[in-house]
Amino acid sequence: MNKIQVHLDQKSYSIYIATGLLQSMPEYVRQIPVSRTCVIITDTNVDPLYAQPAANLLSQHGFQVFTYVIPAGEPYKSQATVSQVYDWLLTENIARDATIIAIGGGVVGDLAGFVAATYLRGVRFIQIPTTLLAQVDSSVGGKVGINHRLGKNVIGAFYQPALVLIDPMVLTTLPRRELYSGYAEVLKYALILDASMFVKLQQNPLKLLSLSDWDWLAEIIGTCCSLKRDIVQHDEREHGLRRILNFGHTIGHALEAITEYAYFKHGEAIAWGMIAAAHISFLKNYISHEDFRAITQLLSCLEKPPIPRSLTVQQVLDAMSTDKKIDEHGLNFITLKKIGKAKIEIVEQHILRAAINFVVHEGL
Amino acid sequence: MNKIQVHLDQKSYSIYIATGLLQSMPEYVRQIPVSRTCVIITDTNVDPLYAQPAANLLSQHGFQVFTYVIPAGEPYKSQATVSQVYDWLLTENIARDATIIAIGGGVVGDLAGFVAATYLRGVRFIQIPTTLLAQVDSSVGGKVGINHRLGKNVIGAFYQPALVLIDPMVLTTLPRRELYSGYAEVLKYALILDASMFVKLQQNPLKLLSLSDWDWLAEIIGTCCSLKRDIVQHDEREHGLRRILNFGHTIGHALEAITEYAYFKHGEAIAWGMIAAAHISFLKNYISHEDFRAITQLLSCLEKPPIPRSLTVQQVLDAMSTDKKIDEHGLNFITLKKIGKAKIEIVEQHILRAAINFVVHEGL
Repeated sequence: MNKIQVHLDQKSYSIYIATGLLQSMPEYVRQIPVSRTCVIITDTNVDPLYAQPAANLLSQHGFQVFTYVIPAGEPYKSQATVSQVYDWLLTENIARDATIIAIGGGVVGDLAGFVAATYLRGVRFIQIPTTLLAQVDSSVGGKVGINHRLGKNVIGAFYQPALVLIDPMVLTTLPRRELYSGYAEVLKYALILDASMFVKLQQNPLKLLSLSDWDWLAEIIGTCCSLKRDIVQHDEREHGLRRILNFGHTIGHALEAITEYAYFKHGEAIAWGMIAAAHISFLKNYISHEDFRAITQLLSCLEKPPIPRSLTVQQVLDAMSTDKKIDEHGLNFITLKKIGKAKIEIVEQHILRAAINFVVHEGL
Repeated sequence: MNKIQVHLDQKSYSIYIATGLLQSMPEYVRQIPVSRTCVIITDTNVDPLYAQPAANLLSQHGFQVFTYVIPAGEPYKSQATVSQVYDWLLTENIARDATIIAIGGGVVGDLAGFVAATYLRGVRFIQIPTTLLAQVDSSVGGKVGINHRLGKNVIGAFYQPALVLIDPMVLTTLPRRELYSGYAEVLKYALILDASMFVKLQQNPLKLLSLSDWDWLAEIIGTCCSLKRDIVQHDEREHGLRRILNFGHTIGHALEAITEYAYFKHGEAIAWGMIAAAHISFLKNYISHEDFRAITQLLSCLEKPPIPRSLTVQQVLDAMSTDKKIDEHGLNFITLKKIGKAKIEIVEQHILRAAINFVVHEGL
């Protein structure tokens, strides 16, 4: 059992990580001051696998359980879905002392969290992430939100959960591409914050993907959560330091946007973005060519679709110009001072262009 | 100049109250760390009176100003309006370092505040309330939100402004009924928190409504803001103490709901609700009959539509059963231990019924 405490003023909470944790989830839910009413929000993929069993367990433990199942997929992380969930909550007369439990990946967690943040001015909220990406990244730190046709995650809030329950066992049912996608975020933590985890992953790059050593996996997930916790405690609302978590995301988001969120999984696009960002770090003489090769080698373990041949450098630059991370000073870009240490800076156009050119035309 | 400091962790801010303040508002806006971009949200009534002059002043002081005008009226405090504002903000490419400035009454402040709380996960937000109700109540304390066909303010958040600017002079253009409506909330503060203000208002019940003594008026508004500040600092998210601000609101909201928000102004319904709540306090022997009469006498200065003859006690009880303030223990009702002191308690059905009967059938 790994317990990570997140301290944020009056909003402190615990993250529990353990193999098989889902079997005893009602005991954890009971530890926080909840009412008898639990509202599970899940999607059509996760409902039969984990939400229905969880609902049964909670019922057996005396909770009154309501479940709302959204269609699976990023297009449903929308205002339309949120509006339907509001309608349902109000029709079911769900009161403000209810607890919303998100069981699913990033889409479910982000959407359910946004509903929790805004229904009756905020109700308690528990995250039970069922994808690797959500376990190491989106379920921790309180970023919740939905997409808009003019941008991803542009409607949202910072709203911390009351509890996060992570059971690595759920990854056994995760599609392979989703597992790779989550691995990209694991590598991100190693690159920006933890050189020793980088070495650990380098020693056996495919170990995580084999889902063979549960203790080792729980430890890796725990390390990622701890690293993110440390960042979020310093800068909950992303005024400064937290921006380093966007390493690989500026170019990654551009690649996702150009391909209309239909071609790459999030982590796949971020993997390409991290290669570009590592290339920038090399061009700026922060990291050696040897380090750059070590990074690209580890990232090449992530099977990912190639950059489409029709895609141009200019398209990527244009897509980046609408990024949320732009303020009046320019685009804040995350580079690596060295493996395990990130830097936030404005990067010169010609270097940006060269690095994008590297991934678009040379690929790997 | 009256300056009230609100201390809430990292979310502290100032409320400035002064006659003629609007003329120098850019100086105040400059005091907070804002970018050059200001987004004014206002309504069709307030736009020509105060938003356009404010936009001109801000432009003269070097700000880049965008303005969005919503149709005036409670029906537009809706998901549809919020969605239109999101579309516009994204189309105009408004970045997260912009400042949203709400210029208007409660509808504008609540809606603009909700947009500010959720656009790009939260942008800076300034309140410039132009109704008495908004000046003494809704602009202070961070409650923002919108209505849903199944309930008022059921979608929202707690999101504090960075600055509140109150100019009592704007009340000269306020319709008379709106002034009365705000006065009801002023009386509420006196009843639940400040016996000396009750005496002050008792001495000259119509002085406030005459808008003749600006210093006196600014002082009254300042007292209300200070009282609310003290409550909000203790209980920002309404887990306990803050509930006393709902004095008169439980039955008041029910009256508004039954008449479909078309018959009473908010403060008018609250005035009826406060008479009922005072009656409960009398029936429970908290206050003397003399005090009860003093309260109803002062409240009778508020010209307000009578309770419709067709309205029944049961309708009010039914409407109360969907109140946000219900938790698994029952409906939390606010009574008066004495003039100037409130109490939160579960009230027995027969007393509730008797008090509602008093206002519905006897009226005043």
